[in-house]
Amino acid sequence: MTLIDTVDYTCGRVRIIDQTLLPGKDIRLDLDCVEDVADAIRSLKVRGAPAIGIAAAYGVLLELENILAEGGVDGKGFIFDRASGFDPERVKGLDIGLCRDRLITAIEKLALTRPTAVNLFQALDMMRLAVESEEPSPEAYCGKIAGEAFRIHEEELEVERRIGLNGARLISDGMTILTHCNAGGLATAGLGTALSVIYSASDQGKKVKVFADETRPLLQGARLTAYELEKNGIDTTVICDSAAHPLIASGKVDIVITGADRIAANGDTANKIGTFGLASTCDRFDIPFFVAAPLSTFDPATRSGEGIVIEERSGTELTHFNGTRIVPEGVHIYNPAFDVTPSDLISGIITEKSVIRAPYGENIRQLFISTDK
Amino acid sequence: MTLIDTVDYTCGRVRIIDQTLLPGKDIRLDLDCVEDVADAIRSLKVRGAPAIGIAAAYGVLLELENILAEGGVDGKGFIFDRASGFDPERVKGLDIGLCRDRLITAIEKLALTRPTAVNLFQALDMMRLAVESEEPSPEAYCGKIAGEAFRIHEEELEVERRIGLNGARLISDGMTILTHCNAGGLATAGLGTALSVIYSASDQGKKVKVFADETRPLLQGARLTAYELEKNGIDTTVICDSAAHPLIASGKVDIVITGADRIAANGDTANKIGTFGLASTCDRFDIPFFVAAPLSTFDPATRSGEGIVIEERSGTELTHFNGTRIVPEGVHIYNPAFDVTPSDLISGIITEKSVIRAPYGENIRQLFISTDK
Repeated sequence: MTLIDTVDYTCGRVRIIDQTLLPGKDIRLDLDCVEDVADAIRSLKVRGAPAIGIAAAYGVLLELENILAEGGVDGKGFIFDRASGFDPERVKGLDIGLCRDRLITAIEKLALTRPTAVNLFQALDMMRLAVESEEPSPEAYCGKIAGEAFRIHEEELEVERRIGLNGARLISDGMTILTHCNAGGLATAGLGTALSVIYSASDQGKKVKVFADETRPLLQGARLTAYELEKNGIDTTVICDSAAHPLIASGKVDIVITGADRIAANGDTANKIGTFGLASTCDRFDIPFFVAAPLSTFDPATRSGEGIVIEERSGTELTHFNGTRIVPEGVHIYNPAFDVTPSDLISGIITEKSVIRAPYGENIRQLFISTDK
Repeated sequence: MTLIDTVDYTCGRVRIIDQTLLPGKDIRLDLDCVEDVADAIRSLKVRGAPAIGIAAAYGVLLELENILAEGGVDGKGFIFDRASGFDPERVKGLDIGLCRDRLITAIEKLALTRPTAVNLFQALDMMRLAVESEEPSPEAYCGKIAGEAFRIHEEELEVERRIGLNGARLISDGMTILTHCNAGGLATAGLGTALSVIYSASDQGKKVKVFADETRPLLQGARLTAYELEKNGIDTTVICDSAAHPLIASGKVDIVITGADRIAANGDTANKIGTFGLASTCDRFDIPFFVAAPLSTFDPATRSGEGIVIEERSGTELTHFNGTRIVPEGVHIYNPAFDVTPSDLISGIITEKSVIRAPYGENIRQLFISTDK
């Protein structure tokens, strides 16, 4: 499997795939200052809640890298690298006090990029704890900060790996899987949730075929899911969202797996608009419908789907395409970004811990009691 | 109500709306020779099976107009006009024999424009009968040809009017209607089928609100349905196809009405991809789902939906938009143009004769026994 290199820290730079150019151009950007990282998040060059969190953490490490470079260090080039780590001998000259102020400023800049995704703030909070920590030496201080940034990335990857392994047990050789939107590596640390299940099954030698809904209005399925699946050599067919229903009815789909944006205490799941219709058609034709999501997506404070507020997005997502107006003036637009699938339509929720099944209320509660989160 | 002037014969010219420019530009074209009419059909400037039939019939009348003009007639300008008819005194000099040959050539040119729509050939067959008829005088011969062309248009309009009136009985004041694709005046003589029901209800003073699915991949809902509804002052909201499902589930839609491309003897209905999913969700939430179609759409020779072959269209409808590639290379595309809705999901079929309900097999048979078609 090719891990999608959505965001990484390589040779002293934050390296991202510029997602605004996909799938037309497949380009890596090396961001070399915290302002560029903030810009990349703001302009959706890097997107998806987990990927943003990782990029922000790496933005703080990049600021540390630049402070060391400005101090002259040893003229031997970059200090930090995810693959090779760093040499503590080379950071001995750092003035921790001055450095801390600049890192706090960097955290504040990064926090102003996007307002909604909880992962951004979680990652920056963790980086702030590292930045504010009292360490006995520059070596220990730099180790703390770099360690925290790499840990955030690795832990996210590990969660995705486990979701993939847990979900892959549901997949047999020769199965046809349908998915919606992009619950893949491009939105996350590199594996995704629903797509991690597919990658994991494929790694186990199971030959699978995937139908990817194009996912109007923003076409994440056509653009992003198709891109990553194709890159991983998975047999992929893009369809318009409407075509999924007769396809499921015809028995040509063995299982539907989607991601989730928020899961209530009773298992009701908010996800990209279109998910509910798929689940409903699966239910009619007895086709398994699964959600794949990390425990961090669960919101035990929200009792049911009724408590989930659905974001309504700009009408221009529907009225315009690449600058061309499609819909005549004077017509209203209703553009909900998500819908809620009631848990009774969900066959199971694949998490890093286990696959949760009905009764959801009870089993979700159990899971959180037995988990240190 | 503003009748959509999709195609007309006005002041000696075939006048059409150039649908390739909608909704951006709302432009009428006056076609002044049969070659231009053929071109307009071939290039989809005029589209929709009934509209093409009418345009072709008018193309033959236009050739007659031009033959008379070349003969010099009386220098008083155009001869034929749908609103004002024609003055028999002015066509007395016509050589019927020469004229007949040119009109047959015109019919043959028009028949080569599009291969599938049955209405094109039906209309041209009727025009050929008029062209080949033995009339005692140029006045009678011209009257026959003009009369046939105008009759084809008027009869089509009358069918649509009756569908509208029959369907409007299902609509109460204040209702919210959801429709899919464009079953409107732009594809027909000017009223449509599903949209004729809406126009008729609105004419009766019922205030209705319409949700129009954008209808991927070709966006006929966003472009054409929204255009005509807005022109008729109907409160219209465009949504992406996926948004219809939670909207129906929420109870905010009172009735769904779509058109049909072909209806089997048992009532199974082929229509634009997306129709089946809507019917299925309506069934789950007990929302009435109706099909509106003329009797000419019924195919009693096809026993059930299983006998209907679904046209698969070019993948470029999904991979490209306005020349921009959306889907990465190397990915498959599956692009069925239609799906089949089993009749047990259909609350009723609105025709020019009556609203047919279950048991469909029996009631469709009855209808065709009692109809002279």
